[in-house]
Amino acid sequence: MVQTLERPLEEILASIRDFVRTELQPLEAEFSKGGFKQLFPILEQKRQQVKALGLWAPFLPKEWGGLGLSLTRYARVSEELGHSTFGHFSFNCQAPDVGNMELLMHHGTSEQKERFLLPLTAGQIRSCFSMTEPEHAGSNPVHLSTTAAHDGDDYVINGHKWFTSAADGAAFAIVMAVTNPRAALPHERASQIIVPTDTPGFRLVRNISIMGDPGEDYFSHAEIRYEDCRVPVDNRIGGEGEGFRLAQERLGPGRIHHCMRWIGISERAFDLMCRRAAERQLSPGELLGSRQAIQHWIAESRAEIHASRLMVIDAAERIDREGARKARVDISMIKFYVAGVLQRVIDRAIQTHGALGITDDTPLSAMARHERAARIYDGPDEVHKAVVAREILKGYGVRIAI
Amino acid sequence: MVQTLERPLEEILASIRDFVRTELQPLEAEFSKGGFKQLFPILEQKRQQVKALGLWAPFLPKEWGGLGLSLTRYARVSEELGHSTFGHFSFNCQAPDVGNMELLMHHGTSEQKERFLLPLTAGQIRSCFSMTEPEHAGSNPVHLSTTAAHDGDDYVINGHKWFTSAADGAAFAIVMAVTNPRAALPHERASQIIVPTDTPGFRLVRNISIMGDPGEDYFSHAEIRYEDCRVPVDNRIGGEGEGFRLAQERLGPGRIHHCMRWIGISERAFDLMCRRAAERQLSPGELLGSRQAIQHWIAESRAEIHASRLMVIDAAERIDREGARKARVDISMIKFYVAGVLQRVIDRAIQTHGALGITDDTPLSAMARHERAARIYDGPDEVHKAVVAREILKGYGVRIAI
Amino acid sequence: MVQTLERPLEEILASIRDFVRTELQPLEAEFSKGGFKQLFPILEQKRQQVKALGLWAPFLPKEWGGLGLSLTRYARVSEELGHSTFGHFSFNCQAPDVGNMELLMHHGTSEQKERFLLPLTAGQIRSCFSMTEPEHAGSNPVHLSTTAAHDGDDYVINGHKWFTSAADGAAFAIVMAVTNPRAALPHERASQIIVPTDTPGFRLVRNISIMGDPGEDYFSHAEIRYEDCRVPVDNRIGGEGEGFRLAQERLGPGRIHHCMRWIGISERAFDLMCRRAAERQLSPGELLGSRQAIQHWIAESRAEIHASRLMVIDAAERIDREGARKARVDISMIKFYVAGVLQRVIDRAIQTHGALGITDDTPLSAMARHERAARIYDGPDEVHKAVVAREILKGYGVRIAI
Amino acid sequence: MVQTLERPLEEILASIRDFVRTELQPLEAEFSKGGFKQLFPILEQKRQQVKALGLWAPFLPKEWGGLGLSLTRYARVSEELGHSTFGHFSFNCQAPDVGNMELLMHHGTSEQKERFLLPLTAGQIRSCFSMTEPEHAGSNPVHLSTTAAHDGDDYVINGHKWFTSAADGAAFAIVMAVTNPRAALPHERASQIIVPTDTPGFRLVRNISIMGDPGEDYFSHAEIRYEDCRVPVDNRIGGEGEGFRLAQERLGPGRIHHCMRWIGISERAFDLMCRRAAERQLSPGELLGSRQAIQHWIAESRAEIHASRLMVIDAAERIDREGARKARVDISMIKFYVAGVLQRVIDRAIQTHGALGITDDTPLSAMARHERAARIYDGPDEVHKAVVAREILKGYGVRIAI
Repeated sequence: MVQTLERPLEEILASIRDFVRTELQPLEAEFSKGGFKQLFPILEQKRQQVKALGLWAPFLPKEWGGLGLSLTRYARVSEELGHSTFGHFSFNCQAPDVGNMELLMHHGTSEQKERFLLPLTAGQIRSCFSMTEPEHAGSNPVHLSTTAAHDGDDYVINGHKWFTSAADGAAFAIVMAVTNPRAALPHERASQIIVPTDTPGFRLVRNISIMGDPGEDYFSHAEIRYEDCRVPVDNRIGGEGEGFRLAQERLGPGRIHHCMRWIGISERAFDLMCRRAAERQLSPGELLGSRQAIQHWIAESRAEIHASRLMVIDAAERIDREGARKARVDISMIKFYVAGVLQRVIDRAIQTHGALGITDDTPLSAMARHERAARIYDGPDEVHKAVVAREILKGYGVRIAI
Repeated sequence: MVQTLERPLEEILASIRDFVRTELQPLEAEFSKGGFKQLFPILEQKRQQVKALGLWAPFLPKEWGGLGLSLTRYARVSEELGHSTFGHFSFNCQAPDVGNMELLMHHGTSEQKERFLLPLTAGQIRSCFSMTEPEHAGSNPVHLSTTAAHDGDDYVINGHKWFTSAADGAAFAIVMAVTNPRAALPHERASQIIVPTDTPGFRLVRNISIMGDPGEDYFSHAEIRYEDCRVPVDNRIGGEGEGFRLAQERLGPGRIHHCMRWIGISERAFDLMCRRAAERQLSPGELLGSRQAIQHWIAESRAEIHASRLMVIDAAERIDREGARKARVDISMIKFYVAGVLQRVIDRAIQTHGALGITDDTPLSAMARHERAARIYDGPDEVHKAVVAREILKGYGVRIAI
Repeated sequence: MVQTLERPLEEILASIRDFVRTELQPLEAEFSKGGFKQLFPILEQKRQQVKALGLWAPFLPKEWGGLGLSLTRYARVSEELGHSTFGHFSFNCQAPDVGNMELLMHHGTSEQKERFLLPLTAGQIRSCFSMTEPEHAGSNPVHLSTTAAHDGDDYVINGHKWFTSAADGAAFAIVMAVTNPRAALPHERASQIIVPTDTPGFRLVRNISIMGDPGEDYFSHAEIRYEDCRVPVDNRIGGEGEGFRLAQERLGPGRIHHCMRWIGISERAFDLMCRRAAERQLSPGELLGSRQAIQHWIAESRAEIHASRLMVIDAAERIDREGARKARVDISMIKFYVAGVLQRVIDRAIQTHGALGITDDTPLSAMARHERAARIYDGPDEVHKAVVAREILKGYGVRIAI
Repeated sequence: MVQTLERPLEEILASIRDFVRTELQPLEAEFSKGGFKQLFPILEQKRQQVKALGLWAPFLPKEWGGLGLSLTRYARVSEELGHSTFGHFSFNCQAPDVGNMELLMHHGTSEQKERFLLPLTAGQIRSCFSMTEPEHAGSNPVHLSTTAAHDGDDYVINGHKWFTSAADGAAFAIVMAVTNPRAALPHERASQIIVPTDTPGFRLVRNISIMGDPGEDYFSHAEIRYEDCRVPVDNRIGGEGEGFRLAQERLGPGRIHHCMRWIGISERAFDLMCRRAAERQLSPGELLGSRQAIQHWIAESRAEIHASRLMVIDAAERIDREGARKARVDISMIKFYVAGVLQRVIDRAIQTHGALGITDDTPLSAMARHERAARIYDGPDEVHKAVVAREILKGYGVRIAI
């Protein structure tokens, strides 16, 4: 990685942009027919190329083999990677591995780092994060039914999770489970525990079919049952009852990553929309782009994407400067704002394409299907809006429940 | 069919409602996994049940084996059928067969009726309508490149079509092709010609994958090439150059059918949303429905669906009373209004379900994917809005181009 | 009134339409400069003309000198009257007098009818309704601080009211005051009491300036203090503690009146928008109406106004058929839906007019200012949406607080 | 002004913020009743205080008695001044004087500067800019009918203008008039000419009443007729036919000023909304802010205002760095985006206040009325959106008409 030491950000971005367009985007048509597993050997090659280009794991510190970018700088990278379905995966900064790596780096024991973090940073294994439960509102994560009971030096885990993304093929899960059911405060009851997926009692019930996509390997969201699943107490990350505190830590940066990825997707949809407006003829000599409805979509999309990027970068700078806690309002604000922009831009791009827009002949259909989740995961719009209002109204001397 | 003669509409609707819920909705989970072909034998049984109940082909005149309902009354039926993916198909009033039957009934020769209409009305064969071309904006259908050249007693057809829905498995297509390229007015150049799908030169290139669904049999949208495809001149429906005039005729009633089907879908999504609001707990004792955002979605959806139904029924009554031509504004108005309501209601229902909403565990995901097309087919929103404005501004003494 | 006995509704509507356009609309320019008082003598003449035409008080039963129209038929009249600022006033069916007349007709004693109702129906006096208090949320009217204490045969009223519309110049107010503070249910604590405005202790503090309009005479909204204001107990309308029950009664029909008036205003704004689109040239030969943005506003406005009318008429029919209580959801639904349409249509019409649209050279500016209140009075949008959701969710077996 | 030389921006902003809140906001209640003229003597005092504080004319170079701020830094000042109706006026940076001063500074002759610019910078006189004509679409300013014909050393001006803001009481107008009617390009036909308002033939027909406000003195928008109005050719600013080129120059910075002023207004409306949410009780102990609808308005408004500020500052930096021409898309983008945010935030703040929101007891009503113009003047939303689309589509190799 020596050669990247002094590379200016714009140069890194240009290399990534080029790689994404020439090496990754062409793979998407294949993927939409054959699925991830079939594509995997090629992606493995692409990952080697990325390493050779000195662009591997841009968010990781240099000592862990990455580019050591600040959050603000990595945000820009995440946008570029968002231009392909395989961007983050090929550069080894895909969720949820990216969050798991940060967690282990900051809170893992030496043994945990050796056994779980190292192969993750090298791209040799994948991992997942097992928190959401079907019986409880994801928007209120302190309600959990999964328990990890002490039994000698082990935890015995029982529970039911879903939306454990990328569990299919992962080497281990980090499970959020109640270890201290009698703690006074609800958010001091759970801990994060590493569970290798070959542990008896780890039962992947199914990959949940989402928006028509059955899911497979990395691109999947699993339903999992933990049935008397026994792991050593040493597999706990951080202290007992610290599960939520640690989970909070990952959310700020994680949302910056997502938002910038969404901006990358939005830019791609926007580009397709403009291209269509500039090429499609309504009648000989009369371009689609001559229509005011299309012009307005282009202008509104441009303004909204521009606003999104400025806000996310501003939030990232604040996190780098003051920490995620201080940037709470900023983070909630971008979460719902950018997710909304993403959905609208994709929808306008589809409408601009007419019948072609709903076919799988363009990437727009996949965007519409996969990214509908953006307004839901990591907290639905409604929760983030309420959080923003709650924090602002504190400044007016009142404390409202949300 | 004798027993249906005096049946009051509300009784018919109640029977259909019951049949849709108990016989058809349970089939959907199967369908989402296995596809149409696998399900076909069961659907064939359901069709027999429908016949036995005396509810077959509700829009067809009694002499053709139907219920002989007026458009206004059939509209109500179409809403009920919209509550299941298989509603219209099971009652033999699915697009595009319904439009083709009407066309043949009104404009077919005796031979055409005998050979093509009769088996359609009996549900023995299916058909398709081949008009849209990828190279031309569907919103301006008078631009067509497909030609049907005279050669003796035959037409020789050459051209490229797509979005020929349900072509896969159809017995024949009705093709819109230019027969009179030198006619003064562009909309007097094309004719409608019956092409059996086993005619040499009829080449189904592919079923176009749409919103992630590859399509199969009745649930498909084909790309087709007509390559020196030869059929007798006697296969033409109506006069030469009358293609657009006949096509216009089907659009008014067709849009009533679609709009009422969409209302049925909207009602189903609305019901799922309310059910979720009434059952999901955010925390013990605190229902999702206690949240004002959800309450507002319920209220706005209720108002918009109610408005939709009143407007569509009003338009249907006008068509029954004054003909489709006079109801032009009404038809364009419901086309864009109801399609918009449909998309919004489905989106709100998904958001109300949170993560569950994007899974394929509820019908909402399929609705979101399949019905995105509603704002595009049969004229995109933007064209219908322009048509409404053009017609209204005529009343102010000006003629605007759209 | 004999001559109106058999008049068909369409004929009545045509007469009113004509009168509104030729006699009333021309007065508005004057009004916008000089105010109501200055205009009053002319309006008095217009009222005489209306009587002479046999169109007086269309909602009143014939025995009270009106046309005896059902709510559904009167709704149509209210739309026509909405085409002028002075429509309802000139036909003696302006709020709040219309509601007060209905109240007295159904619940007044003979003496009350003789003294208060008769001159109201004749247009000799005006009245007001004094309910809202500045200290309490109007959306939750059971919270009231105004009290009426028994003292011998009198009530002694103390309290603070505002938005007592048309108090300036009214002969009497109907005041909602707490007479039974210890009643178990909050909505059984208040009564409605007639207070002549010349009663000592009735203090009209000011006409509240609203959206830049200081208000005057009938077109005003007063702040009032009741200071040891003494009236006979016989001035109570209905039983003690029945204040809210009686107030509820007027709301259903009252909202039909308002909604249809708003539709009249919307139609007028729509007409101005179309006129402008058809006349204004962007450059020689190029009409404003050729712009797609304008076309879309025309189409969306047309659809929304059409939907509004169908829904309000449908609700009125239901009230006529089943009573206001059963039509609760319908009434709340039209209240927020039509108020929203009204605001959007006016806003689009203004934008279509460009700079002219914000001047007082057209009626649009006054519409925008006066009708902003529509989304607030008689229950803000947010309350009506919550009511709709609450009623619907009852059907799902749950009772939510709003 | 020596003492301001080294003042850091944040300190300047803090002083202004304080002055606006303590000295200017309290004057508004008076103004809403009495009008500008009555208030003028007090405002004159305030201007002296501003000078004494060393904050006069922040946008002017120091040699002209100002603070010499860059556009980016002045933008921040403009936001602060936007918190009061009298902010810009009190600091002598009100439109249209601010634009006229910049014009004269850059393009005026020594005599013009001496006679017109100097007293403007000192706040001794006011001026106006006379461009828009009622007969032509303001969105397409190259269509002008006002002419300035050569007659010896004079121009003789004839024409009809309106929306000449602040003409009432101004010492001179800068008039846009056609001097070269036969120039090949339409935007090379007009020149800008100084016309003292006491010139014979300068006829101020009326102050146009706008949104209910008749207008007076500085707060007015005049209709003007130029009737054989004769001024020396030396009164022309810049070369003949350069009128539009010079007008273009002022638009970029002018829109930054406006947008930041709107953000100031939006912030004030937002603050009122939050205050209301934090203080108003729906029932004892239950705050308005506990309602999700209010929470969402707060969150959406916060996000939109934040986005607005980031975008405007970004555009200002670009203008400072690359000039207004290069920032064309940025300028059009903020013009429509921020105007839309302004209108929405004010509307939400009004709705949050309920009935109080439409009274003139809070500043919200005046905001709603005065700022409706924001989406219209300096180019309506629709034109700016089309400009953005046109510029973007140039990058796709096509040139669309708008």
